[in-house]
Amino acid sequence: MYDDLTLLSGRAHPALAAEIAEYLSIPLGRVILGNFPDGEISLRLEQNIRGADVFIVQPTGPPVNDSLMELLILIDACQRASADRITAVIPYFGYARQDRKDAGRVPVTAKLVANLITKAGADRVLAMDLHAAQIQGFFDVPVDHLYAAPTLDEYFLSLKIPPDDIVIVSPDEGSIKRSLQHLERLGGRLAIVDKRRASAMKTSQANLIGGPLDGKLALLFDDMISTGGSIVGAVEIARRHGAREVYVSASHPVLCGPATARLREAEIREVVVTNSLPLRDDQKFPNLRIVTIAPLLGEAIRRIHRNESVSYLFD
Amino acid sequence: MYDDLTLLSGRAHPALAAEIAEYLSIPLGRVILGNFPDGEISLRLEQNIRGADVFIVQPTGPPVNDSLMELLILIDACQRASADRITAVIPYFGYARQDRKDAGRVPVTAKLVANLITKAGADRVLAMDLHAAQIQGFFDVPVDHLYAAPTLDEYFLSLKIPPDDIVIVSPDEGSIKRSLQHLERLGGRLAIVDKRRASAMKTSQANLIGGPLDGKLALLFDDMISTGGSIVGAVEIARRHGAREVYVSASHPVLCGPATARLREAEIREVVVTNSLPLRDDQKFPNLRIVTIAPLLGEAIRRIHRNESVSYLFD
Amino acid sequence: MYDDLTLLSGRAHPALAAEIAEYLSIPLGRVILGNFPDGEISLRLEQNIRGADVFIVQPTGPPVNDSLMELLILIDACQRASADRITAVIPYFGYARQDRKDAGRVPVTAKLVANLITKAGADRVLAMDLHAAQIQGFFDVPVDHLYAAPTLDEYFLSLKIPPDDIVIVSPDEGSIKRSLQHLERLGGRLAIVDKRRASAMKTSQANLIGGPLDGKLALLFDDMISTGGSIVGAVEIARRHGAREVYVSASHPVLCGPATARLREAEIREVVVTNSLPLRDDQKFPNLRIVTIAPLLGEAIRRIHRNESVSYLFD
Amino acid sequence: MYDDLTLLSGRAHPALAAEIAEYLSIPLGRVILGNFPDGEISLRLEQNIRGADVFIVQPTGPPVNDSLMELLILIDACQRASADRITAVIPYFGYARQDRKDAGRVPVTAKLVANLITKAGADRVLAMDLHAAQIQGFFDVPVDHLYAAPTLDEYFLSLKIPPDDIVIVSPDEGSIKRSLQHLERLGGRLAIVDKRRASAMKTSQANLIGGPLDGKLALLFDDMISTGGSIVGAVEIARRHGAREVYVSASHPVLCGPATARLREAEIREVVVTNSLPLRDDQKFPNLRIVTIAPLLGEAIRRIHRNESVSYLFD
Amino acid sequence: MYDDLTLLSGRAHPALAAEIAEYLSIPLGRVILGNFPDGEISLRLEQNIRGADVFIVQPTGPPVNDSLMELLILIDACQRASADRITAVIPYFGYARQDRKDAGRVPVTAKLVANLITKAGADRVLAMDLHAAQIQGFFDVPVDHLYAAPTLDEYFLSLKIPPDDIVIVSPDEGSIKRSLQHLERLGGRLAIVDKRRASAMKTSQANLIGGPLDGKLALLFDDMISTGGSIVGAVEIARRHGAREVYVSASHPVLCGPATARLREAEIREVVVTNSLPLRDDQKFPNLRIVTIAPLLGEAIRRIHRNESVSYLFD
Amino acid sequence: MYDDLTLLSGRAHPALAAEIAEYLSIPLGRVILGNFPDGEISLRLEQNIRGADVFIVQPTGPPVNDSLMELLILIDACQRASADRITAVIPYFGYARQDRKDAGRVPVTAKLVANLITKAGADRVLAMDLHAAQIQGFFDVPVDHLYAAPTLDEYFLSLKIPPDDIVIVSPDEGSIKRSLQHLERLGGRLAIVDKRRASAMKTSQANLIGGPLDGKLALLFDDMISTGGSIVGAVEIARRHGAREVYVSASHPVLCGPATARLREAEIREVVVTNSLPLRDDQKFPNLRIVTIAPLLGEAIRRIHRNESVSYLFD
Repeated sequence: MYDDLTLLSGRAHPALAAEIAEYLSIPLGRVILGNFPDGEISLRLEQNIRGADVFIVQPTGPPVNDSLMELLILIDACQRASADRITAVIPYFGYARQDRKDAGRVPVTAKLVANLITKAGADRVLAMDLHAAQIQGFFDVPVDHLYAAPTLDEYFLSLKIPPDDIVIVSPDEGSIKRSLQHLERLGGRLAIVDKRRASAMKTSQANLIGGPLDGKLALLFDDMISTGGSIVGAVEIARRHGAREVYVSASHPVLCGPATARLREAEIREVVVTNSLPLRDDQKFPNLRIVTIAPLLGEAIRRIHRNESVSYLFD
Repeated sequence: MYDDLTLLSGRAHPALAAEIAEYLSIPLGRVILGNFPDGEISLRLEQNIRGADVFIVQPTGPPVNDSLMELLILIDACQRASADRITAVIPYFGYARQDRKDAGRVPVTAKLVANLITKAGADRVLAMDLHAAQIQGFFDVPVDHLYAAPTLDEYFLSLKIPPDDIVIVSPDEGSIKRSLQHLERLGGRLAIVDKRRASAMKTSQANLIGGPLDGKLALLFDDMISTGGSIVGAVEIARRHGAREVYVSASHPVLCGPATARLREAEIREVVVTNSLPLRDDQKFPNLRIVTIAPLLGEAIRRIHRNESVSYLFD
Repeated sequence: MYDDLTLLSGRAHPALAAEIAEYLSIPLGRVILGNFPDGEISLRLEQNIRGADVFIVQPTGPPVNDSLMELLILIDACQRASADRITAVIPYFGYARQDRKDAGRVPVTAKLVANLITKAGADRVLAMDLHAAQIQGFFDVPVDHLYAAPTLDEYFLSLKIPPDDIVIVSPDEGSIKRSLQHLERLGGRLAIVDKRRASAMKTSQANLIGGPLDGKLALLFDDMISTGGSIVGAVEIARRHGAREVYVSASHPVLCGPATARLREAEIREVVVTNSLPLRDDQKFPNLRIVTIAPLLGEAIRRIHRNESVSYLFD
Repeated sequence: MYDDLTLLSGRAHPALAAEIAEYLSIPLGRVILGNFPDGEISLRLEQNIRGADVFIVQPTGPPVNDSLMELLILIDACQRASADRITAVIPYFGYARQDRKDAGRVPVTAKLVANLITKAGADRVLAMDLHAAQIQGFFDVPVDHLYAAPTLDEYFLSLKIPPDDIVIVSPDEGSIKRSLQHLERLGGRLAIVDKRRASAMKTSQANLIGGPLDGKLALLFDDMISTGGSIVGAVEIARRHGAREVYVSASHPVLCGPATARLREAEIREVVVTNSLPLRDDQKFPNLRIVTIAPLLGEAIRRIHRNESVSYLFD
Repeated sequence: MYDDLTLLSGRAHPALAAEIAEYLSIPLGRVILGNFPDGEISLRLEQNIRGADVFIVQPTGPPVNDSLMELLILIDACQRASADRITAVIPYFGYARQDRKDAGRVPVTAKLVANLITKAGADRVLAMDLHAAQIQGFFDVPVDHLYAAPTLDEYFLSLKIPPDDIVIVSPDEGSIKRSLQHLERLGGRLAIVDKRRASAMKTSQANLIGGPLDGKLALLFDDMISTGGSIVGAVEIARRHGAREVYVSASHPVLCGPATARLREAEIREVVVTNSLPLRDDQKFPNLRIVTIAPLLGEAIRRIHRNESVSYLFD
Repeated sequence: MYDDLTLLSGRAHPALAAEIAEYLSIPLGRVILGNFPDGEISLRLEQNIRGADVFIVQPTGPPVNDSLMELLILIDACQRASADRITAVIPYFGYARQDRKDAGRVPVTAKLVANLITKAGADRVLAMDLHAAQIQGFFDVPVDHLYAAPTLDEYFLSLKIPPDDIVIVSPDEGSIKRSLQHLERLGGRLAIVDKRRASAMKTSQANLIGGPLDGKLALLFDDMISTGGSIVGAVEIARRHGAREVYVSASHPVLCGPATARLREAEIREVVVTNSLPLRDDQKFPNLRIVTIAPLLGEAIRRIHRNESVSYLFD
């Protein structure tokens, strides 16, 4: 269909892009990115991409505004250089939590960002674990939405924990659906941290709906870990209600502010995340385990390029 | 600002439009709506609306396609008749549940509908209790999003039930957030029907997280009642776990198929809904109570027209 | 050019779609269409259509709003499922008669519908015998506009009526151009029903310009038969002015309301229509003859898909 | 509503603009229009139009491309100079006859022109006697469509011709509807020139449907006179079929090529046209009568500006 | 990628189009262009272009409005005839000098024209020596921007003038950058006509910055020659400051008004231009030399069609 | 016209916004801006702006991506909060130098940024000293473009330097036009640094066209000072060619990297800039003089709001 599959990387996460390129057995496209002395982004494609089927890998994590603008400028350059089709590959979609007006007079930045990406010239989007699935509808261009859960669960299954030793503890009410999906694959039963109450009372049995945990192994799943405050609070509650050991897992390791310190100090057996975002050395800690989504993204790119079904990747 | 506030009604819910007109102390705009013999909608505005600030009241409930097309045709006629501003007042937004691709190769009809409304010429939208708040972001035009909860709770407060006699029972995991909001105003504590398990096992104590109910009064809140199967199932579970009495409440009384029969026969003290949708006589039953949202919508329209803050209506 | 020719059918006229598929020697694409209990349309494509050249067959006849919304939702699903090109095949285009503001403050629904189809994501349109040829200009996407006349005339030519036994009777002033085109192929001479006068006077010789018919065979052509009132009136006038026998022909058999009863009872030798719209058994009658346009549409689709000229189909 | 009604004129028809300005009792807006030596149009607004309600009078008659580009450039300048609303007043709409694809591979220039006017920044259009009413639907912005017929008929009524002395002769099949509308106001009966036959046979009684004319006065109405060939042919046919005297009338006097010579030499009592287009002296001839539409346009502009109903002008 | 490379020519410069076709070894596409008697452009494509990769050659020189409208109509016809991709090849881009608001209340016609071309349906643009490089940014579709300088310099190099005999005289301050680029290839040193002062004082040594020229050979480069006044003035100044001989060169020979007379009479050795615009016989003069850009445009078209790099043509 | 003039400030330059508010005698609008822990921008308008005429002051200087995204998010919030009109006031327009493709395969970021601002919902733009005037044409919304030159020259006039003691030294070829405009107001004569040669040779008399300076006072004007390398080089050349004293002036003090150190150490009497950008203390130095553009912007805002002419501010 397309002349040429071309994979480009912004500066947000070149390691991931390189891993995807390796999966696809193609070299990364040559693009020179830099900053002018005043901080403006400079860019030059070092190869002809006329008629190419271009995929640009750029998670829009911190520094979010720089990552996002770089993505937009990359799209603009590819469009003006006559790429045939441009797919923005955004494993982590920044500003996703600003997805509705929950109060008056606030922006809906996630929609704004969707509009910016489309206006810049993206023909399609490949995303993973969007904060709300409705963000797909913010786009009028096709969006392929992948899930990290199967990749994460594959790791947990490799631990061979007996299902009746597992309690999936939803760290708040909003994560119940996600928790149930993991429960489907991993077995065990469900408990829910009543976050609202938790913050009001600090202690007491009442704040774990579905407790006590009776010396079982608690698994906590969230879509992202930002400052870690919420998830570490949930870990403590799980502990207090009798969990023998606690695993924490999240698709997106934003890990900002005190997150690393908190996670390092909490009584957690292992924190399991994907590499949807790059991690600096100072963000890492001993019991952090990173599972790669490069094969998931690479396979999706291969199939999109060849017009093959991507649906099976959704399960 | 605008020459004239003009309130128009499609044929979906003229009673509600009339009530709003009364609240605003203005006559309903004159528009002749009919169907040609082949079913196509015919329309003629019987008054000059040049420069007017037009509000079109049309919930897009069943028959959804007819209601929606009528709304679009009304907007088109107003736009071509040189209205200055057109606000689509959509108390119930049909197709709202098709708001994401949860499987491959399905439409995102809620986004499609948002696009159609905008393309037809609506300058803004006034909605109430959208199935997902993110639907606001499906629009690039301003959306004012009202909540029925305060109006519904006003009724429940008028019953003067002691807070410690109340258990708010969330009929499924997706309604927990809504339940907690009512709990804020009405008091009581929370229980959650574990819908997934409920369907698998049919009975047993396990399927009410946060039970038993100990002879208390159960309040169940949902955003809409469609066939009633889910809510009546939740009522039975609440009963089985010891609820003394059960109230059911929902913003949108879609009440299709067996809904009325089911609700009439279930052991429910009262079913409390708004008039966001019209109800035929055969959809009603003795213990159905309808609270009106005409003042809520009317006040919002008045304030939008006058450029006054609508935010306080959001609480 | 395109990976794959895919033919999809909505629920408006699956028999026609099946006939076209047979002409093309391809299977119909698998799509599951249904209605939720509240009447909302549900849809799921059961096959991969990435990169496909999709043609969606859906005349937008009665129930027009349901047919139209189903078409829009099909387009949306195909676009989000990454079809390469989507052609809306609309043999009968509903709302076509609302194509101008003949009075103040009315909608131009035909343009609205064109906008909706484009906004939903159609890349092109294949239509037949649009009520006004200008409707092509309502679209900015390419429109291929076919004519049923050659197919209908083929049937009349097979009757071997001597040209000098034919009078083509235009049922009103608006159909003169159409009548002249048939006259080109079938021979005979022209007479015109003066519709305006006809309604004013009911009888008298004056209301057939170009009469009397002197025992000849009258052929009446219209673009559609809706309630049949107008065409049956023209038949009576032709009879009164001496026609020996009357044939009636129309591209689009809308046949709503009293149409079937009227046509059954009128003194008409044969009513010849295409299958641009489906007919229920109760809409049919003994001397109704349906000629199929499946080969016409099928050939157009084949040629569009292969980038071959479609122009010869226009003659 | 608007700060200021501002009337601007391009160079296509300043006399008409001046007459409209007089009707409205306002001065024409100051704009300097010229051509650079290479023929490019130069333009400068000589007055502040921020926030103004601007009406630009510019029929797009010959030289059509110059008139049209000048209109577009005027709109662009007004939009960039922050006019609040821009109405293109186009009494004669050039390229209107290219309104459909009657053959394969031709442009739909009328739609193209509509798109250009909208893209340049026009907020609305005021037109008169569009070649096809459907051209209104080529625009998504509001179009007010006026009719010259009442103004023309006013003149004919002033001649006090007894209705039973009148035969309205439609010069071809496409003008029947127009002829019937005049018949409504002026009385008389209808005859139709069978143009198709006329060209084939040149003479014979057969080519006037509804003849002979028995010494009556024939009135021929067309929407425009271009080269005059068609209308002068119809005049001859009317004459040959016994018309005592012939009047010809048309909304738009394009009068190109041999038109003036033909009309001057034909046996026509009077040719009655509007001033929708300017006429050079060499286009005029003794029995040409021009009735002004300045009051019609002026009143429409006044009412549009004041948000008053324009509908009554449609009758 | 594309089915077929199709080269079409408007009537602006068929000779150039024919030369490009020859370079590409393909026949020119068959299109019939004409004018209706009222001057409206008529057009019909005489060959099937479905799925074709169409290039339309049409410089928009005088008569600029006719050339431009013809280009737009060609694009419209190609788009409606289902061309796969349409590239407007515009070697001379009319209205390019109206590229900014240098005073209040003027149009930015160059942007307007860019919008019109895009709205008509062009997918890309191939231009040469735009008056300002920023005009590329007026388009959101890809623009390939070629330079005539290498082609012109090739000619000057063939003259084998010793570099130290050359002074490149910039005819005004705005042409310095252009002059420096030629200096890069041809050698020599730079002098600048101080145009502002020149017009104020008419004579004196002060108005050649970098003079005197000491009997050297002066080369003057401009982007276009319109009336020739400016360049002939610069020639005189160069002469007065001691130039032995003067060559004048420009990419675009607009040559309107007194240009030919002026150039013929000025003391110029040779005027070297490209054939970006057609020249009538009366525009030519003995020492006018036309170098062809057909190979430059032809090679660019070939490479665009084949998705090969065009960048090397930029140097 | 507008309900209310509302002035909002992003965090890029609150001091300038405050000064403008003071000029207009209105309070700054209340908006809470912050960053979430992961760096995403949070925003909440603390006052009702329905129907307001909102001006958002935000130069997009370093950190350019943060400033720009904040501007876009502010616009989005205002648009969703139903502002009637939103004007982006951008005294310094970041990315302006990326305004064309000077090489293949680079972005045109200035156009991208213009598109982003429009897509976010800005109705108009107020800018000052854009790097290229053509950037106005990158917008389809109205742009008011102010010049800092009169404000800067006012300062220089206050120094009462005798015109014949002034040489305006253009620091490169691109600044000649700008230099000539100052010369118009300040008097003196022109010299031009031949930048190309300057970098090649480092020394020699040849690199000042129009020199020597004979002990006069040199004034150097540029549109912005970024790293200061170019302007300090020009200062040295002016010195070497005999300037007695050198003044440097620029509209936009970007002052990044070594700029402050360089300027402090160069032999410059005074560096005169506007406050279009904020300056940190470490960017300032003794002989830096900042003239305020708050009155210029404030007056423009007042006039835009009142629909008064802004043109006089252009001189």
